[in-house]
Parts: sequence; structure tokens; C-alpha cells
Amino acid sequence: MGKKVITLGEVMMRLSTPSHERFLQTDCYQVVYGGAEANVAVALALWGVHAIHVTAMPDHDIGHAASRYLRQTGVDTSQVYFKEGRMGLYFLENGTMQRASKIIYDRFDAAFSHFEGNEVDWNRVFDGADWFHWTGITPALSEKAAKLTLSALKAAQKNGVKVSADINYRRNLWQYGKSPLEVMPELIEYSNVLVAGLTDFENCMDIHEKTYEKACETAQQLNSQITHVTTTHRDAVSASHNALSAVLWENGKLIRSKSYEMTHIVDRIGGGDAYMAGLIYGLLHLHSQEALEFAVASSVLKHSIPGDANLVSLQEVEALVKGENVGKLLR
Amino acid sequence: MGKKVITLGEVMMRLSTPSHERFLQTDCYQVVYGGAEANVAVALALWGVHAIHVTAMPDHDIGHAASRYLRQTGVDTSQVYFKEGRMGLYFLENGTMQRASKIIYDRFDAAFSHFEGNEVDWNRVFDGADWFHWTGITPALSEKAAKLTLSALKAAQKNGVKVSADINYRRNLWQYGKSPLEVMPELIEYSNVLVAGLTDFENCMDIHEKTYEKACETAQQLNSQITHVTTTHRDAVSASHNALSAVLWENGKLIRSKSYEMTHIVDRIGGGDAYMAGLIYGLLHLHSQEALEFAVASSVLKHSIPGDANLVSLQEVEALVKGENVGKLLR
Amino acid sequence: MGKKVITLGEVMMRLSTPSHERFLQTDCYQVVYGGAEANVAVALALWGVHAIHVTAMPDHDIGHAASRYLRQTGVDTSQVYFKEGRMGLYFLENGTMQRASKIIYDRFDAAFSHFEGNEVDWNRVFDGADWFHWTGITPALSEKAAKLTLSALKAAQKNGVKVSADINYRRNLWQYGKSPLEVMPELIEYSNVLVAGLTDFENCMDIHEKTYEKACETAQQLNSQITHVTTTHRDAVSASHNALSAVLWENGKLIRSKSYEMTHIVDRIGGGDAYMAGLIYGLLHLHSQEALEFAVASSVLKHSIPGDANLVSLQEVEALVKGENVGKLLR
Amino acid sequence: MGKKVITLGEVMMRLSTPSHERFLQTDCYQVVYGGAEANVAVALALWGVHAIHVTAMPDHDIGHAASRYLRQTGVDTSQVYFKEGRMGLYFLENGTMQRASKIIYDRFDAAFSHFEGNEVDWNRVFDGADWFHWTGITPALSEKAAKLTLSALKAAQKNGVKVSADINYRRNLWQYGKSPLEVMPELIEYSNVLVAGLTDFENCMDIHEKTYEKACETAQQLNSQITHVTTTHRDAVSASHNALSAVLWENGKLIRSKSYEMTHIVDRIGGGDAYMAGLIYGLLHLHSQEALEFAVASSVLKHSIPGDANLVSLQEVEALVKGENVGKLLR
Amino acid sequence: MGKKVITLGEVMMRLSTPSHERFLQTDCYQVVYGGAEANVAVALALWGVHAIHVTAMPDHDIGHAASRYLRQTGVDTSQVYFKEGRMGLYFLENGTMQRASKIIYDRFDAAFSHFEGNEVDWNRVFDGADWFHWTGITPALSEKAAKLTLSALKAAQKNGVKVSADINYRRNLWQYGKSPLEVMPELIEYSNVLVAGLTDFENCMDIHEKTYEKACETAQQLNSQITHVTTTHRDAVSASHNALSAVLWENGKLIRSKSYEMTHIVDRIGGGDAYMAGLIYGLLHLHSQEALEFAVASSVLKHSIPGDANLVSLQEVEALVKGENVGKLLR
Amino acid sequence: MGKKVITLGEVMMRLSTPSHERFLQTDCYQVVYGGAEANVAVALALWGVHAIHVTAMPDHDIGHAASRYLRQTGVDTSQVYFKEGRMGLYFLENGTMQRASKIIYDRFDAAFSHFEGNEVDWNRVFDGADWFHWTGITPALSEKAAKLTLSALKAAQKNGVKVSADINYRRNLWQYGKSPLEVMPELIEYSNVLVAGLTDFENCMDIHEKTYEKACETAQQLNSQITHVTTTHRDAVSASHNALSAVLWENGKLIRSKSYEMTHIVDRIGGGDAYMAGLIYGLLHLHSQEALEFAVASSVLKHSIPGDANLVSLQEVEALVKGENVGKLLR
Repeated sequence: MGKKVITLGEVMMRLSTPSHERFLQTDCYQVVYGGAEANVAVALALWGVHAIHVTAMPDHDIGHAASRYLRQTGVDTSQVYFKEGRMGLYFLENGTMQRASKIIYDRFDAAFSHFEGNEVDWNRVFDGADWFHWTGITPALSEKAAKLTLSALKAAQKNGVKVSADINYRRNLWQYGKSPLEVMPELIEYSNVLVAGLTDFENCMDIHEKTYEKACETAQQLNSQITHVTTTHRDAVSASHNALSAVLWENGKLIRSKSYEMTHIVDRIGGGDAYMAGLIYGLLHLHSQEALEFAVASSVLKHSIPGDANLVSLQEVEALVKGENVGKLLR
Repeated sequence: MGKKVITLGEVMMRLSTPSHERFLQTDCYQVVYGGAEANVAVALALWGVHAIHVTAMPDHDIGHAASRYLRQTGVDTSQVYFKEGRMGLYFLENGTMQRASKIIYDRFDAAFSHFEGNEVDWNRVFDGADWFHWTGITPALSEKAAKLTLSALKAAQKNGVKVSADINYRRNLWQYGKSPLEVMPELIEYSNVLVAGLTDFENCMDIHEKTYEKACETAQQLNSQITHVTTTHRDAVSASHNALSAVLWENGKLIRSKSYEMTHIVDRIGGGDAYMAGLIYGLLHLHSQEALEFAVASSVLKHSIPGDANLVSLQEVEALVKGENVGKLLR
Repeated sequence: MGKKVITLGEVMMRLSTPSHERFLQTDCYQVVYGGAEANVAVALALWGVHAIHVTAMPDHDIGHAASRYLRQTGVDTSQVYFKEGRMGLYFLENGTMQRASKIIYDRFDAAFSHFEGNEVDWNRVFDGADWFHWTGITPALSEKAAKLTLSALKAAQKNGVKVSADINYRRNLWQYGKSPLEVMPELIEYSNVLVAGLTDFENCMDIHEKTYEKACETAQQLNSQITHVTTTHRDAVSASHNALSAVLWENGKLIRSKSYEMTHIVDRIGGGDAYMAGLIYGLLHLHSQEALEFAVASSVLKHSIPGDANLVSLQEVEALVKGENVGKLLR
Repeated sequence: MGKKVITLGEVMMRLSTPSHERFLQTDCYQVVYGGAEANVAVALALWGVHAIHVTAMPDHDIGHAASRYLRQTGVDTSQVYFKEGRMGLYFLENGTMQRASKIIYDRFDAAFSHFEGNEVDWNRVFDGADWFHWTGITPALSEKAAKLTLSALKAAQKNGVKVSADINYRRNLWQYGKSPLEVMPELIEYSNVLVAGLTDFENCMDIHEKTYEKACETAQQLNSQITHVTTTHRDAVSASHNALSAVLWENGKLIRSKSYEMTHIVDRIGGGDAYMAGLIYGLLHLHSQEALEFAVASSVLKHSIPGDANLVSLQEVEALVKGENVGKLLR
Repeated sequence: MGKKVITLGEVMMRLSTPSHERFLQTDCYQVVYGGAEANVAVALALWGVHAIHVTAMPDHDIGHAASRYLRQTGVDTSQVYFKEGRMGLYFLENGTMQRASKIIYDRFDAAFSHFEGNEVDWNRVFDGADWFHWTGITPALSEKAAKLTLSALKAAQKNGVKVSADINYRRNLWQYGKSPLEVMPELIEYSNVLVAGLTDFENCMDIHEKTYEKACETAQQLNSQITHVTTTHRDAVSASHNALSAVLWENGKLIRSKSYEMTHIVDRIGGGDAYMAGLIYGLLHLHSQEALEFAVASSVLKHSIPGDANLVSLQEVEALVKGENVGKLLR
Repeated sequence: MGKKVITLGEVMMRLSTPSHERFLQTDCYQVVYGGAEANVAVALALWGVHAIHVTAMPDHDIGHAASRYLRQTGVDTSQVYFKEGRMGLYFLENGTMQRASKIIYDRFDAAFSHFEGNEVDWNRVFDGADWFHWTGITPALSEKAAKLTLSALKAAQKNGVKVSADINYRRNLWQYGKSPLEVMPELIEYSNVLVAGLTDFENCMDIHEKTYEKACETAQQLNSQITHVTTTHRDAVSASHNALSAVLWENGKLIRSKSYEMTHIVDRIGGGDAYMAGLIYGLLHLHSQEALEFAVASSVLKHSIPGDANLVSLQEVEALVKGENVGKLLR
């Protein structure tokens, strides 16, 4: 049987302008649903993983549409709870060439931020699970969301489930009165695999080092349960052309992935989540270097697909890792 | 020169599903911007009236897009203020046949609800103005919005400007702790022309009468400045087919309009605002019966046009009043 | 082998707003190509008639696109000539309910209006032909177009080809300095079948009668070659709902068609041309009453199809004449 | 907990022309997935029923898209098997007014028609199930499909599951060498609730009666397990306007539903399946007359929704049964 | 007068996802019609060649739509026969960057594969013809299609018509029980110009050489009527960026074309057919090197155009050969 | 308060094919409105400048739509006059890769070309104005348009307003009987800032020099009021990839801007006007080198936006000048 992975986080409605239109000129928005953690679940579900996403959505037609969207991708939506409240949403304007992409968030006060998770039977959810993934976005949303994350982490630990955390520090979140350093360190203590860059180390772990390796080592010294730390490197020639690679620090050893030129980016949103999904899949099934290459290839393919979701098959990621099929016409 | 009319109220982003799609199936939303009061301004501007809409919008690209949308229709947007905060929005699913239309509101905590209007130079705004229009939606949004309405009304009175009020009672608004009866009577005291049905009388004026005429008389007894009370009558055969007519009570006399069969409704949102715009235009330029007929014809034409805005010309409304051009091909 | 029918006239680019949008709000126009005479050729070609349309179009990509459009429908485009000049065009806003449809013409000075037809080998074109169809729009466009019509008519007569004329009087054409009465009578002298209403009789034939039968008789007295006169009757409940019927005067006898309720009109443009095509097909293959019923049924079906072209099969028209398949789901 | 209902049948890709375009003019097809039995499962799933659809689909991206589509609606897709072969499909042109709707089927030789169901653990599927629904389309597709139906029916019987059969006789299916009378009677012997009209009785049960009641009685005499027979009555004024009602024969008693005028039909495909879903839901939860009314109201609402799927909530159907909300704007 | 070229082959309906959408996410397919041989006819017709395409299509609206599509491009459709059977079709997902393009074929058992061509008067078709083009796809479809190809080739030879063959070996075709080597050599014996790469030589001619020149020489030794052998070279940096060039072997001499960087590919389908059309046109009108350059430039331009058809003018190809207009704005 | 800039010129309807479709294949045109001078006004209005555009448009719905379009962008439309006549229009096919972009103009005889401007109160328009911008397109349209330009220039001079002229020589305009050299020199005498390349100097100023600096000097010698001359340099790798830079000659000194690689051009129309707008803004607010860089960055961003209008904010241009945000995702 496939692996079982649990994710926790808000799902937002994403409204993006078609073609290359700007907010100022569009009269039509294309809609998908996504969130940093749900995007990971979606990618894993497509690869045959039993992915359960835990979340709360408003109990109206659009909340239900969002849940159905997740369900379509194969995610197990039995832990989607419908609550009073609004749908978090964000507006996206895809950039091109020298023009940057823009996001206007409107996620404040969403149903998820009030979700306490009392209905969740965490032990059943984590029973037989292989992995739990959370991100630093959730504890940044509200005090309740931070507590919910902690509850989930404790249950994961109790059930012997491996934990990954995408630190994902964003200053303009964290508006409910707590600072990241008051909240994140406790949560990170339950986590084995971190996605973190130097800014994340500084703001969420109070680690101030000049090199990435040093920062990883310090992190492990502080939190001995940490086994892997990773980050992607995006080199942006323009909004249409980026180069992408990643590094993975594993118990003191730093390995690097191949670098890919992404020359005609269709949609970069969810690129990091596709990396995360690839890494989880990789660490569950492959050796470290292979896992890292799988993760980067997964992310590269995401950049060719409209929407948040990484709609690629295992075979497609594996082929890219081997350098196969690039530019082919598969009949 | 044309007349000058002032309107005050929130402008929302409206996201509607295309064709006859349901919320559960759409992946695209069509966007326009509107609000009960702004819709009145838009219609009047198209008829050559100098219509100034006073409002606040978020100071980001979508707020600016909303303002530009108003500006495009000819509305004077010099009194649109850009503020911190979110854009109020609503999702619309157009019904058809036996299936009702549905709206999901997401307007709580919008920039407008925090707007105190300190920047507005009310005396300059009302200088030379002929009319001020407000609705019961604004004081229902927040305490600040109720106070803003009162400030505007006082300034209107001071400048000798005629005032119309669309009572528009909606129970699911009014969530900031005050009841309509604590707020509305004071505001109605400044108003000359009321759009009100029996439910509005009951909930916002504490007038409990069995006939419309009696209710109008009681209203005038309580508020002697009231000269006109009006309401439309919509007879819904189905979501696609309504009949529409209206009555106008003028200082004790009740007159009735023609009734129109609207057999292939395209979009009923804004139908009431088109009536209101027609009535204001009519009372400023025509005799009462003509004004009433103009208002109803304006509303009927609105039902044939997608969006909130009543994009019809004076000539088109006048032709419909005369029964001309119906079903024609105008070359 | 099938019949051979020749048509002559301008082909315009038609730009129509999608859905029920107004000119004032659309940012997209849907394009087809058509003209009163070409529309007749298109319908006939679909029914297996060898239909040759004679016209001139601008020698640029859009002129070529127009010709290709005709060719797609099966029309013989060997007599389409590419010339210097512009493409005539018109903008269409489809009405609905009480709101009328609107057309803005922009056809002045088009390539066709300068076309003298010197390249046309009329005798080859009319060789073996069964019918020639022209309309009063062509001689209204320019002096050259009037002369071209006359040349074609003379060649048709010389080759013994039956001629139909859709008088189609429109006052806002006829701007090149001649009045209809200076031009049309000479052209009508070559015509056997007329589509004409009382206004057409008055303005183009100087016949002022009070009844339709009387007018037809007078016309035949003046032009003994006339065998048939016909007109449709459209009763417009609204832009969405019309009733349609027709009468055919044949050598002194007036027959009437069934009347159809068209309750959900999709596109009325080309409805008259579909009638004309039906009548030509009918008079070539059927008895008079059958021909008349075929013509009206053809026109009714056109109203259900977007675009100028009457994309219906012989079988579909015949079924409607018999009252079959109405409201069916044909698998 | 909710009821459990099993359905069995082919899922096709449906390609329909947008707006009112004809096959001859469209350059775009809108895609959904559906089938007579799957449509029943979809509607039931939306109402909280645990609906399992048993089928086979091609093991390529489009087969997976079809399965995901079902999954999105809430159907349990654990019994969707991916096999070699092609996707059955059909092209739909929606009619309007006098113009009939047209379907071009291209379902021959699809993966489902080769499906033997050896992988299906029927006892597990039917364990705890309340209902099994099949239609006469499946045994008409291929010998294997007929055998598969029989296997399912036997397993249903063994597990004490109630069975409904939509006879749905279509002459142009049944091309594999067997006649309906050779196949259907045996299958009907396992069924308790029949959807059948007089033509179905004649062609699939060899029952030739003049009245519906007599036919139902004869059917029960031949198959004593039959408890209910039902059929809808569609009165087609035009493709846009039908009236709909139904009758239900229950152990000798015939009851009739209300009749609904459907005056602006959006999409009639799946209307019968929505009726069937409504009836199953009704017979599982309501008294007979209520069940019948629920079924018809379900079908009426379907006609207002694009696509095969009846995307309406329980509350919406119940409201229509009570005559509530018709033509309303629900905020 | 222009040259006359005959082509023979299946025309399929192509259904492609819009923008960069994947099969898994689209709900809309864009439709054009094409096939390897018909695409050649389309390009030639646009350049003024009298191109006759011989094929069979299903006798339903979609078959007729396909024929009309061909007719629109200028192809002579007098040899399109309408038969019982289904339309072959294929689904296309356009790749981008590292993501490959994908095709799902569904062409088995199409009307064309049953077409015996008895109605074709081959001598009349080839009368005065300059060229006949066939591809290795046709004999791979069915025994009847292979025989049809042979009949055509014999007639072409009898009428002294030059013949080109695009070998186009595809392993997953050839499913009717014969191997390419049983069928192709006989057909190649009638052909003068071959498009073939080393794989084609091996699988269809049993020629196993290591260099292209050697393979060409061997081919000519076996088939002395062969005068030209050619192949394109595509260097795929990614799905969005290819380099394209070609070689032409002419009676022992190998010439090479310029190489083009195609950096923003819109649609590569039909690129090979555009090359073939260019080569036929070139060999009919130009010297060899010019013909080769014309062919490659034709193919390059095709990659910038959505759809199978190479909608470019002679002037545009000629300009590219000369390096003119690249990146220009032509007013 | 902001600066005040006046522009004068025709506004055309632009009809462009969607995606990468060719004129020959599209059935839909996207519509915006623009013109060389109006595009300058639009960009300036977005940057807070009080931009008044003086023009005439046809007095029908499409003329009004054009005016509303301008108004939406913030342009002051008080000097838009509605007149008899047609709307000038142009059709645009966006090129890609080696395929050039194409424009078909249809602007002859438009309402603007007959506009004499008698209603314009030039002194009021120029009162307090900082800048007037005209282009060589206007005097090329008609004698009346040339005279109108002269009137405006005289009024500008009288009011002490700085003047810029985009010479913009296009041979295929100038069809009313005058040559550029008869008309342009007199107009240039009133202008301080010229956009001109060597071809412009030759055809419109009779200046024949081999170097740009020499030409600028000669121009100043002939017209001592000239202070600045400028031109952009576009290096077209393909229709999708251009490099862009500019030079500015200021009283004898030539300065050069940075060069930008524009690798994924969305829409190049209006790129020159965005440069002009940037230069005007820059010369009004910045030092020369900064102004030049601002102008080029403005033009670069325009190439990423569909439509004529340069919908970018001041902050976005300034960030690009500093090299900030390129390829970023701004949240």
C-alpha cells in the first residue's frame, strides 16, 4: 500500500487574471483553490500517496467547491470541516519579462483562522501515517491556528510520525500580536525536516549565521531531532525566466541538485510546494541525492502548469530527473 | 447645465459565474463593481447628470480598478478615497427557470466600513447639488458608516439639497450591535423621498400598518418633510420571468405604473437601483406619473443587461415608456 | 445534378458583442461575414445548390478571410474578386426582451462599392444557371454598384435565367445622389419574383396602394414579367419573442403560410435572407404552397442559430414544415 | 450514517458546443463526463448518500480526468478500474426553439464494453448497501457488459439489496448480435423498481398493453418482485420549453406528480437521471407521493444547469417541492 | 495556371487543451481538423496550388464540419467521400519548457480505414496533375487503406505524376496484422521523393546504414526511380525552444539548409507537414537549394501558428528565406 | 498639484486576434481603443498627471465606448467632441518568433479627420498647462487635421507651453495631396522636443545627415527653439525578443540609456508611446539622464502588457530603473 501523509493548513480561493492581463484591465478571474500545505497534499495524492488534508472551510457553496476541488485531485477530504466564516482568497497577476508577478491577499479572518480542530480525532488521523507536513504560514494566521498546529504536532510525535516544516517566514502575516520567535521555536522542536533559508533561520529560530551549512548545524545543535534542512535557489533573470536548483543538508552533509533553466514560465505559484511534495515523496522512497533531484524536477515541471497544483505524474518527474522526454512530442 | 446628484455608499467587487454555471462548477468569475448607491450614480451619469459618488476603497490595484470602473461610466470619482483595508465583494450565481439566483456576500470589514469621511469637504460636495441619495445598507454596515451617513445628511440639509432614502432593510446586515430602530429613524428625518415596503416600515420606522397608503400617511405624519414614498412590485413567475410595476405615493395620492412582463431576464441585480435612478431623474425633470413610468422602464431595461450597471440611454428609456422600439432591430 | 443559382452583393464583416453585452461594455467582438445576397447563397449551398456569389473584397488578409468563410459554407467563390479598398463592416448588439437590437453600419466606401465587374464573364457565370438573385441594397451603395446590377440583370435575361429581387428599401443608404425611383424601376423590369412590402412598393416602384394584393396586381400590370410577390410578417412581442409568417402572391392569388412563435430568439440577423433562400429553393423544387412553407420554416430555424448564415439542412427544414422533431433530442 | 447506493455503467466524455452553436460552426467543445448511471450516483453523492460507481475507463490521462471528475462530485471512485481501450464519447449540440438538440455518439468499442469485472469484489461492494441501480444501456453495449450486469444483479440479490432498473430502450444500441428480448427479461427478474414506458415494455419485456396501468400490472404478474414502475412525461412545446411530470405505479396504485413548466431550458441531458436519483433518494427516505414529487422537482432543477450532473442540494429540491424560492434572489 | 497536387489520407478531428492546460485540468477543447497529408494540401492550396485531397469522412455533421474546414483553406474537396463510420480523432496537450507535448490518439476503426475508394475516378483525379503525395501512416491504418494507397500510386504512375512519400514510421500504428516491411517496399517503388530518417529506412525499407548519405544511396540502388531523399533535424532544447534544419539528398549530392532557432514555439503539430508542403512547392518551382530553404522556412513559420494548418503566404515564406521582416511590425 | 499635459490626436478602435491566431483563422477580436497621442495621455494620467486629450469621435455607441475607455484610465475627456462620421480602426495580428506582427489600418475618413476644432477653447485648455504633445500622424491624416495641429501649436506657444513632437513619418499616410515637407516644417517650428530618427529628419525636415548627432545639430540650427531630440533603438531578434535602448540629444550632448532584453514580448503596440510618456514625465520631473532611463523603462514594461495602454505605476517604472523587483513575486 501507498504511504500516508497528513497536511494541515488553510485553503484559499485563488483568483488570477487571464493571459497577461493586469488587475487594472481584467474583467474576468480564473479560479482554483490552493494553499501551501494543500498543494503538497495534491501533488502527493497524484503520485499514489494517501494524502489527508486537515482544514476548515466556510459552509457555503464556495467552501464546498473548494473541498470538491481538493477531492478531485485525489486528496482525502474526510478531515475538511465546514464552519461559519469567510473564505480566504488571493488575487494573482502573473508577471512576464521585467514585470513582476503580484499577489493581493485577502485572507484575514477566514474560517480556518478560527478553527480549533476539536472535531479532529488526531490519533485516528495519524494512525499508520508516515509523514506530517506543516508550514510557518499557519501559526502566523491566528493564535488558534498556532495552537492547532501545536496539537497536530504533539499527536504526530505521539504516533511516531515524521514531520516536515516549511518555515516560510512572511513579515506581513503575523498580525495577531505574537512574534514568530515567540511561537515558531516550540513548533520546530517537533520537526525533523526543515525548509528554511537564512531569513527564516533569523526570524523564526533566532539563528544568525553567515553560511547555510553553519546555520543548519546550529539548528541541529538546538534541535537534535532535525535530520534534514533544505532550501531552493531561484535565480530570476526575469519573471519569465528563472533558474532553479536546491541544496539539502543531511546530518552535516550538504548536497546540491542539478540546476534547471526555466525559460518560459507559465505559473510559478506552488513551485515551492511542488518542491516540498517532491522532497517528502523522495525521502519516503529514495536515497537523499535522488530525493533532492526528484524534488527539484517536480518543482520545475510545476512552473509549466497553470494553477497552484502540480499536475504531473511520477513518471514525468522521473523522466525529467533522467533528462528524458524534454521537448518531445509523446504520442 | 445638468443636474448634480450626490450618492454615498460602499462599492463592491461582484464576481459572477458565466452562463448559467453554478458556484459548484465554475472555474471563472466575471467581474464588475457596484453597490446600491453607486449603481444609481452610474445610471444618472449616463443620462448626463453630474453624479458624484462618495466612498472609500482599498488603496491597492483592485481598489483602483473599482474606481476606474466607476470613472468609465461617467461618475465623478473625485470623492473616492483610497484607504487601508479590504475590498468588499460578493459572489453571484444567476438563476434560471425554477432555480433561484444566489448571492454569497463577503463584505465584512471592508475599507468603506472604517471610513469616517474626515477628508470630505461636504459643503463643497453639496454646493449647487440638487439631490442626495443614501440607502439603509450603509448605516447597517458599521457604526462609522452610520455616523458618516448622518454627517452627509446634515450637510445636505444645510445646503438645501433634496434627499432620497432607499430603506432596503436586510436582517443579515446590522451586525455591529445596533438595531435598525436605534439608527434609521434619525436618518429618515432628513429624507424627502423614501423607497420602502411594509417590511421596511416595520423594521426601520416602527410603522405597522396593513395597507401601503396608510403606512405612507403614518410616515408623513411622523416626518413631515416626506413628500414621496414608493415601492416596486415584482411578480416572479420564475427566475427567468418576472412582471414588474411600481407605485408612488405623493402627498396622499397613490399612483401606479404600467406593468411589464420581463420574459427573458439576463441579470436582475441592480434592477432596484435602476428604478431609483429613474425616479430621481424623473422627479428632477418630469411630472410624477411620467417620473414613475420612467423609473419602471429604466428598471425593466436593466434586467436585459449583464452587470450591475444600467447601461441604457435616456432615449432608450423614453422610447420604452412610449412603447416604441420594443423588439425592433435599430439600424 | 443540382440547380445553379447566382447571387451578387457586398459581403461585410459582422462584429457582434458576445452574450447580451452592450456596445458600451464589451471588450470582445465575434466575427462572421455576411450580406443579404451572400446569406442566400450560403443557405442554398448547404442544400446542395451550386451557388456562385459574385462580389469584390479587399485584397488583404481580412478580405481573404471573408472569402474563405464563404468557401467553407460551400459557396462557389470563383467569382470573388480581390481589389484595393476597405472591407465594409457592421457592429451588432443583440437585443433581448424589451431592449431592441442595434446595428452600427460602417460600410461606406468599401471595395465592393467601387467594383465595376469588368473581369466577370457574365455569360459563363450565367451559363446553365437557374436563378439570379439581387437586392435593393446593391444599387443603393454607389452608382457603380447600380450599374453592375444592371449588367448582371441583362446577362441573366440574355441567358434565360429567372430573377428574384429583394427590394429591401432602406432610407439611410442611397447617399450617392440618386433616389431609388431613378434607379430601381429599371432594375425591377428584369425581375420575376419580388420580395416587397408596401413601403418598398412606394419608395422603389412608386406604387401607392392600400392593400397588398392590389399593390401586387399593380406591380404586375407595370411589369408583366413579374410572377410572384412575397413578404414576411414579423410580429414582435419583444426582441426575444417574435411570431413569423409570410404571404405569397402568385399571378393574382395570395396564399398564406403557417405562423410560428419564435420564443427564444438567438439571432434574427439573416432571417429574411433565410426566407429568401427557402423561397428560391422552394420555387425551384416544390409547388407554391410548399415553397412558401419551406421558406418560412427555413427562416424560423435561422433565428435559433448565431451568425448570419442559415446553417440548417434540407431535412431539418422539411421536418419543421411537417411539425416533426420540434423540441426533440435527436440521437 | 447515510444510505449506500451502488451504480454500474459506462462513463463517457461529453463534448458540447458552446452557446447555441451548431456542430457545423463551432471551434470549441466544452467537456464534462457522464453516463446514465453515473449521473444518478453524482446526484445522490451530493445529497449525502455514499454512492459507489462501478466502471472501467481507459488508463490514460483522459480516463483519469473522467475519474477525477466523478470523484470531485463526491462519488466513491474506488471501483473505477483503469483498462486498455478507448474512452466512449458523445458530441452534443443543444437545440433551442424549434431546432432540436442533436447527439452524435462515438461510444463503440470503449474500454467499458470490454470490462468483465473480475477485479470487483461484489460482496464487499454490496456489503451494507441499500440500493443498486442499473440501466438497459449497459446490456445493450456488449455481451461482456450484459454478463457484468447479471453478475452485479446476482450479487445484489445475494446481499439483499433493493434494485432499480431504467429500461431505457434505444434501438440503435444493441448491435452485438443479441436482441433486447434475449437479454433484458433475465436481468429485470432481479429488479424491484422499473423506469419504463410502453415502448420499453414492448421491446424489453414483450408486454404489449394499451394503458400504462395494465402494462405495470402485467409486468408485476410476470415478475412478482417488482414493486414500483414509473415514467416521466415530457411535453415539448419547443427545445427551450417543456412541461414535465411523472407517474408512479406502486403495487397496483398509480399516483401522479405535479407538472412543471420548464420555460428556459439550459440543458436537458441528464434530466431523466436526475429524476431517477430523486426517486431512489425519495423511496429510501420518504413516502411514495413525496418521493415522486422529490424526483420530478430534482429533474426540473437539472434542466437549469449546464452539464450532465444535477448539481442541486437537498434543500433546493425540497424547496421546489414546496413551491418555495422560485424566482427568488437568495442572499 | 497553378500546379495540381493530389494528396491522400485520413483527416482527424484534433482536440487540444487551451493555453497550457493539461488533460487533467481542462474543461474545454479547441477543435481543428487535420492529418499529415491533408496538412500538406492545405499549405499548398494557400500558395495557389490546385490541391485535391482524397479521403473518406463519416456522413454526419462532424464529418461535414471537417470537410468544410478543408474547403475553407482552399483545398479541392470534390474527392471527399462521406461514409458510415466514426471520425478519427486525437487529443493534444501542448507542452512547454521541460514538459513534453502529449497526444492521445483515438483513430482506430475510423471511416477512412474502411474506405476502398471505388468511387474515385483516379484517372480524372490525376489528369494533368503534377504531384501525388502519400505517407506511411495510411498503409499502417488498415489493409484497405494500404490497398487504396497502392491503387492511387498505380494511377499516378500511369498518368506520369511525380510521387512523394513521407515514410513516417510509427510503431504503435500497424496493428492490423501486417508488418511495414510486408507493405511499404512495394509502395515505395512508385515514389520519387522520400522523407525518411534512419529509423524509417530500417523499419520500412530494410536498409541498415550508419550514415544518411549511404542510406540514401542504397535506397536509390534498390529503387532507381528515387531522385530525392530528405529529412529534417530538430534539436529540442525544450518544448518551447527547438532548432530546425534539414538536409536534401539529390541524386548523390547532400545539401543542407540554414538552421533556425525557434524560441517561443506556439504549436509544433504540422511542422513536418509544412516542411513537406514547402518541399513539394519548392521542387515544382525552384532549384534544389532554394526548394530546401523554402521548405524549412515554411516549417519554421508553422511553429508560430496554432492548429495543424500552415496558414502562411508565399510572400511570408519567401521573406523568411531572405531573412526579411523577422521581428517586424508590418503596417 | 500635478502637472498638466495636453495631447491631440485620433483615437482608433483596435481589434486584435486572441492568443497567437492569424487573421485567417480567428473568429473573435479583442477590442481596446488607442492612438499614438492618446496612449501618451493614458500613461501620464496613471502617473497622476492631469492629462487632457483633445479629439473627435463618432457620436454613436462605439464612439462613446472609446471615450469611456479613455475616461477609465484617468484621462480628462472634457475635450472629446462627438461628431458625425465613422470610427477609425485597425486590425492587429500579434506576431511571434520569426513571424512578424501585422496591422491592417482602416482609418480613412474617420470623424477625427473632419474635425476642425472650432468648439475647442484653446486658451482655456492650455491655461496653466505644462506640456503639449502632438505627432506627425495627425497632419498626415487630412488638411483639416493639419490645420487643427497648427491652431493648437499656436495656442500652446501663446500660453508658453512646452511642446513635444513625435515625427513618426509613415509613407502610406499622407494621401490628401500634400507632402510632409509642405506641412511638417511649419509645425516643427513650434516644437521643443522632437522624437525623430534619420528617416524622419529626411522626410519631414529635409535634413540629410549621416550621423544622428549631426542631424540633431542641423535641426537645432534650423529651429533654435529645439532643446531635445531623441529616438529609441529596437534590435529585433524575433517578434518575441527585442532589445531596447534610447538616446537623447540635449543641446549638443548625446546621452544613452541602458539597454533591455525583452525576451517574451506580449504586445509591442504602444511601446513608442510609453517611451514618449516616460520622457515627458521625466523631463518635467527629473534630470536628463534619469528622464531618459525612466522613459526606456516605461517602454520596456509596456511590452509586457496586452493593449495599447501602458498600465504601469510610477513605482513600477522607478523600480525597473533601479533594477529592482525584476522577476519577483510581490506579495
